[in-house]
This record gives sequence, structure tokens and C-alpha cells, in this order.
Amino acid sequence: MRGHDGTPRIIVRKADGSHEPFHEEKLVKSLRRAGASDEVIQEILTHLAAHHYGEMTSQQIYEHAFRRLKQHEPFSAARYSLRRALFSLGPTGFPFEDFIAEVFRAQGYVAQAGVRMQGKCLDHEIDLVAERGNTRVFAELKFHNDPSQRTDVKVALYVQARFADLESHARTLAQAAPYLLKKMLITNTKFTQSAIRYASCVGLSLLGWSYPPKGNLRDLIEETRTIPITTLVHLTQTEKDALLARGVLLCRTLLEHPETLEDAGISKTKHDTILDESRYLCGGGRGVYTRW
Amino acid sequence: MRGHDGTPRIIVRKADGSHEPFHEEKLVKSLRRAGASDEVIQEILTHLAAHHYGEMTSQQIYEHAFRRLKQHEPFSAARYSLRRALFSLGPTGFPFEDFIAEVFRAQGYVAQAGVRMQGKCLDHEIDLVAERGNTRVFAELKFHNDPSQRTDVKVALYVQARFADLESHARTLAQAAPYLLKKMLITNTKFTQSAIRYASCVGLSLLGWSYPPKGNLRDLIEETRTIPITTLVHLTQTEKDALLARGVLLCRTLLEHPETLEDAGISKTKHDTILDESRYLCGGGRGVYTRW
Repeated sequence: MRGHDGTPRIIVRKADGSHEPFHEEKLVKSLRRAGASDEVIQEILTHLAAHHYGEMTSQQIYEHAFRRLKQHEPFSAARYSLRRALFSLGPTGFPFEDFIAEVFRAQGYVAQAGVRMQGKCLDHEIDLVAERGNTRVFAELKFHNDPSQRTDVKVALYVQARFADLESHARTLAQAAPYLLKKMLITNTKFTQSAIRYASCVGLSLLGWSYPPKGNLRDLIEETRTIPITTLVHLTQTEKDALLARGVLLCRTLLEHPETLEDAGISKTKHDTILDESRYLCGGGRGVYTRW
Repeated sequence: MRGHDGTPRIIVRKADGSHEPFHEEKLVKSLRRAGASDEVIQEILTHLAAHHYGEMTSQQIYEHAFRRLKQHEPFSAARYSLRRALFSLGPTGFPFEDFIAEVFRAQGYVAQAGVRMQGKCLDHEIDLVAERGNTRVFAELKFHNDPSQRTDVKVALYVQARFADLESHARTLAQAAPYLLKKMLITNTKFTQSAIRYASCVGLSLLGWSYPPKGNLRDLIEETRTIPITTLVHLTQTEKDALLARGVLLCRTLLEHPETLEDAGISKTKHDTILDESRYLCGGGRGVYTRW
């Protein structure tokens, strides 16, 4: 997107304070991924070019695109907002634990959030313990409210030491014997390069929003259609909070128990629209819809 | 300190929000330790009783005592403020690293702050490496700006994992062989109970302001007379900052290089007073004065 003299009209100010020219391909890709039509994508780009120039943050570009997408294709807007929807699960991080447990259940694991376990030196609360076949996953979760905050090597080191303490105990009791143990650190943002280097060196699996390149958190959420209700465009924040407070985390749960909408005090006139949106986003079950 | 009906007049509000009655013995003990005379201690208690009642924080009680002690016996006031003086080394924590290196040097160690070392998985910057005889100390430092902030088990776990990574590498190279390795975590505040339990289980030595009961940071500072210039009552904050910026951390350095006072732009009329105070606090050298 360039001005008449060929210079880029929009400069993106990144979270770390640095700048880069705006590349519309990235925006097009994420809009297409959300299911936006070529027509609407073109409309968004034209509007952006006509009304904006100079410095913008990614967040501002996102908001511009989301607002216009919501006007034209609300269901695509919901998909588009998925990453932000995870942040709306904050600020405590507890719904994030429950949400990740759901993502594992949808993959066929028996999963439990917040499990107390005995290590050699300490009692630990493990954020997620999941089992499938002879594999047992121990996962520590790191939820960030701020999308630009990466999970750093200190967290990876701390998590590794916790698992080492658990393993020292388990080895004594030979408890871990029948299991293939997988140690994980899961975050809703990114990892620093040092965290990635250290984790790969000590055998700690990392799962972030877009890490690893394939099979990352976004991929798993989309494949299993484990869509949080915070994604829904037709719910206000108050309505989302009321549902979360009742333990309703997923669109799927709304479809299975539509009566929770009434329990949460949501106006009857909106129920059908909300259920339509939920059906579109998470389908009737696993694998019914093709990949977004 | 009680009112006419026998109820305590002053209630101490603690950092965690809980309350306890004010016990004057604790205040008396710390004032006596700083060298305050019985007369002045009595004066402080009487003034406190006459002018204060209801809820006070420890900080408020400290400030009251410090103000009056400073009026009557400024040198005792300086000693009394030692713990707070460490906080004035903040907020970056770098002067704290240098300061702790000085405490180790005063004990006969060859000490270096901020040493880069190769681990098996990562390069680490170790806050302090100190050697004396065949003992090598690796120390990680945790500086808190807030006195009520304890160093918790996450820090101990993280530090332990760093040392484990260094040891994995050292073992490969058999570098650590001639040394008795001592791993330490040093803080200017307190440790949580879990941190203490974990550290003792994995062989990590802890050193805090008042932990362990003997040989803690306060004891070491007093025994070695490694007094930070932030303790000096006769310097303003601006003057302290000017000296710190020139790398002058210790009263001892002022005595050895009194010309730094002029370099830092401190008025000549104050030099003698400042040097007198420094001489009183840290003496001419190690072991010249009896224990405070």
C-alpha cells in the first residue's frame, strides 16, 4: 500500500517500539484464513488506504479490519478475533487452564486442570495433567494478558525445575514407569528465542499461539473446534462474563445446553442469533466442517 | 504501649493486610542495635505514645523513630537505616550486585559481578562468582524494591535450573573438579517458607536480610563494615545518586578517596561531616571496631 510517490503510506509500530512498512499480504492472509470473501477483503484494504496513513500499531490495523468485517461478514469477524478472544479469558488465567484442558479433551485425552502432585522437595500444583493411551502429559501454563509479552527463558527454567522435582519423586516410586512422559509449557503468546533453545535442549515441549509452525495452539483450536465463547461477536462483554461465571467456556457447550443463555440473563430475542453463530463457529461436533 | 483502659494504643498494619498490636520491644531492640542511647530510646517511645494511636504501618513507625533519632544521634540513625539503605541501591539492582561482590571481597573472596558462563543448553550471566581457597561460590541475586516482597519458590526453582544447566556443562568438561561448589540465592528481603524448604532439599544456600538466623546479610554487612553510602544521613538523595553514578558504593571508598566528594559536586563545607560519619560507620578497616 503505497502513496503516489511509491513510499508506503502506513508504517507499523511494533510492540518493541521498532517500525516496519505495512505489508498488506499479512492482513489479507489472516482475513482469508477467517473466511472473509475477496470482496470484503478488498473493501477493507481500500478503506484503510483511503482513511489512514502514517504510524499505526498492529492492534489499530486489527481493529479497523475487525470493525468493517463485523459489518459485512460477522461470522468471519468472529473467527478473525479468535486470538483476541483468548485474552478475554483473563485476567486470572484460570479459565485459560480450563480452556486448554478442553482442547486436550477434544483430542481424546482424559484431562484435568490444577492437579496437586508430590515432588521430592515440594508439593506442586500442575496446571494440566492429561492422559491418552500410554502417554501422560504434564503441562505448565503461562497466560499473558498482554499480547506482546513473550514467555521467556526464566519461565522455561522454572518449569523444568518443577518437573525435575516431580520426576525425582516419581522415579523413587517407579510411578512414571508405564507412561511415556511428555513435559509441556503452554502459552497464549509467543516464546523468546532463548526459551525455545533451552526447552529443546532439555526436552520440554513448547506450545504457543503460533509455535511450533505446525500443530500450534491456533491449529489445535481450529482442528478441534474448541472455540471459546469470548469469540462470539453477538455477545456483549457483560454477557460473556455472566456465561464464564457459570462455567460456560465453549460455544459447543452453548449448543449442547442452550438453556444456559437464559440462566445467564441473556435476552431471548438474541438466543437464535447467538446459537447460529456458535453453530457456524464450532459446528455440530468434531471434524464435521472442513478446515477454516 | 497501652491506653488508660489497658488496650494497645497502636495497631500495626502489616504488609499482607493483617494487624497485630504494637510491641515496643521490637523497636527498642532495633534502636539499641543501632547504638541509640537508652535516653533517646525512651524519648522516642514517649513521643510515639503521645502523638500516635490507631493504625500505623511498620514503615510509619520506622519513619517516626528515624526522624527523632536523626535529631539526637545522627550516627545511630545511619546504622538504624541500613536495611532501607540497601533499597536505595535500586531500582535496577545493578549496584546491589556490585555491593554484594564487595561484601564477599571483605570476607577474603576474589569476587566478580555479572559473569557470563556457558551451560549445556544456554549461556548464562551469573550475578556473582566468588572464590576463596578451593571453594567457588555461584550466586544468583534477587533485588526487591519493596521491602514486603519475599523471594518465592519460583525464583529458587529458576535459579536451581540455571545452576543445573551450568553443572551439566562443567561436568562434561570436568571443570568443576578442583572446586567445592557452593550454589547460592541472595536477596535483600525475606524468603517464603516454600523457597526455604525447596532450597534446603536441593542444596541451594539462601542468604537474606535476616536469614539464616546467624550469618545473614545484615550480620555479614556489619561484621565486614561494608556500609553502602546510601546509609549516610548527611547526604541528600541527589548527592547519593551522583556518587553511585561515579561507582562509589561504600563509605570505605569515600575514606580512601575523599576527593570523590568534590568530583561528585558536593559542597566543601559538608565534606568533614560526611567523612566523620563514614569513619564512625565503617571504621578505618576490618575488625577495628567492636560489633555494633
